[in-house]
Amino acid sequence: MDPRVNIITLGVKDVEKSAQFYEKIFNKSRSDQSNENIVFIKLLGIVLAIYSNGSLADDAQVNAEGKGFKGFTLAYNAKSEAEVDQIINEVELAGAKIVKKPQKVFWGGYSSYFCDYDEILFEVAFNPFFPLKENGEIDI
Amino acid sequence: MDPRVNIITLGVKDVEKSAQFYEKIFNKSRSDQSNENIVFIKLLGIVLAIYSNGSLADDAQVNAEGKGFKGFTLAYNAKSEAEVDQIINEVELAGAKIVKKPQKVFWGGYSSYFCDYDEILFEVAFNPFFPLKENGEIDI
Repeated sequence: MDPRVNIITLGVKDVEKSAQFYEKIFNKSRSDQSNENIVFIKLLGIVLAIYSNGSLADDAQVNAEGKGFKGFTLAYNAKSEAEVDQIINEVELAGAKIVKKPQKVFWGGYSSYFCDYDEILFEVAFNPFFPLKENGEIDI
Repeated sequence: MDPRVNIITLGVKDVEKSAQFYEKIFNKSRSDQSNENIVFIKLLGIVLAIYSNGSLADDAQVNAEGKGFKGFTLAYNAKSEAEVDQIINEVELAGAKIVKKPQKVFWGGYSSYFCDYDEILFEVAFNPFFPLKENGEIDI
């Protein structure tokens, strides 16, 4: 395999509601390949797919039952502490639940977590040790 | 937020064992910012982080208990059906469990799923409707 992942698919209860949430927070419309069952939003180097949780489990031929911590998080690196605060305000207005308020953290950064309607966790952080390139990618 | 996710963090039982697995399947060494607690592997446009499941839940200030389906999958788009077969053989040799053998699927593609030591699901698929750009990104 080349060092890439092409698609992150999130299993959700309500595809259209979640798709609208992600279109809003990423300020990006779904791609033309989307339909009522699955929505694709093209991000930097990777595509976010939003699909029903049951259909996603069926596709992998695994049991759809699951509860509690999902064992993964997605992180967005902001340019400053002030930008973390601003983004957290924006996503809360868009319907996110704030799980961890913005705060200084032990590794020297400033971090906050929100979750979507399906308890999928997003960190928004300012990490002074991980500079951002002009295109928004982490320069490590 | 700009349309990007900078880091996917996977919560695992054994950071070093999982890090070696991902270095092997992506044929890419960890970045210098890695340490014994967290390992970073730079992928196309996004960084894969490998962290202990308990520490990840603590960081988000949520309960680490969780079981069953994790509600997300990661997908790798291959160039052909033959490449799907080849990758599945390689990841199995690297320690992956094959969850769904390579097969033709209803949407017109050819798909397989494997999981890592923590039941994190990866799809490897050939999708004739999602051409790959030269850098390996999906061209949608």
